[in-house]
Amino acid sequence: MVMKSSFAYLFDGLNESQMEKISRIGKEIPMQKGQQIFKEGQEANGVYVVRKGAVELMTMVEEIFELPISILRNPGDVFGSSALVPPYRYSLSARCAAEGSLFCIETPELRKLASEDREIGCQIMTNLAAHFLDRLKETRQEVKIHFKMLLSSTRS
Amino acid sequence: MVMKSSFAYLFDGLNESQMEKISRIGKEIPMQKGQQIFKEGQEANGVYVVRKGAVELMTMVEEIFELPISILRNPGDVFGSSALVPPYRYSLSARCAAEGSLFCIETPELRKLASEDREIGCQIMTNLAAHFLDRLKETRQEVKIHFKMLLSSTRS
Repeated sequence: MVMKSSFAYLFDGLNESQMEKISRIGKEIPMQKGQQIFKEGQEANGVYVVRKGAVELMTMVEEIFELPISILRNPGDVFGSSALVPPYRYSLSARCAAEGSLFCIETPELRKLASEDREIGCQIMTNLAAHFLDRLKETRQEVKIHFKMLLSSTRS
Repeated sequence: MVMKSSFAYLFDGLNESQMEKISRIGKEIPMQKGQQIFKEGQEANGVYVVRKGAVELMTMVEEIFELPISILRNPGDVFGSSALVPPYRYSLSARCAAEGSLFCIETPELRKLASEDREIGCQIMTNLAAHFLDRLKETRQEVKIHFKMLLSSTRS
């Protein structure tokens, strides 16, 4: 059984029997340092949970440079969740930064489960919306920082 | 009856009878130019749809400057949707930029409807997650632009 505590935001609010259903549709996969897990823009078929090791998320800047977005090191960290909403493409690239393993849930299975068990579906989508809003606020904060730098350079 | 076409993303995929339920829990309110609709950080009790007129969304930079985020001019444009996810606070400020009217749905009513009719709830949350992901991608794009400017100024 997959322990609830090993999952982060995506499964918040689900009870033990619902988590049991989730755990049945996922599988554990190993990852090696440097391994590309998925690429930005690629069709997205799976949501991932870090079990062990670390994963780096990046975005392309002008096809020449990969800008690091974050490093996930905590068991339970979720990534690839843009696989759950249209247009079902990864919005970032993911690469293994330290050897370990992932729990992978294929999204056709997860969507099937969510449509059979509406409560699971609603809860996951609510968690997902809250998560994207959090990331949006963080990213706006970055824009503000750049903006302030511009303002102060104009003044000086 | 509220026409489905007058609603943007939030109500995508709902059928006529579901839209009827939504329209029953909302109310039309007038707005005057310059009127503050809500402030960033404030407890969020309502989701709004532009019926007529225009609304400007802004974010505070260092409590001295309001950075414009977007102007909503199309009937059906939705704002204030951070009222639907924890921590239930507005993530931006909204001000009327051109006299008109809004359709306001109080979130306790909408949450009640969503828990009674799971299909409505799931659909709205899926739409919301997709919307926040879109905004997130746009905002990341802005960060990339600033980043490229920094890179080129370092090079020159």
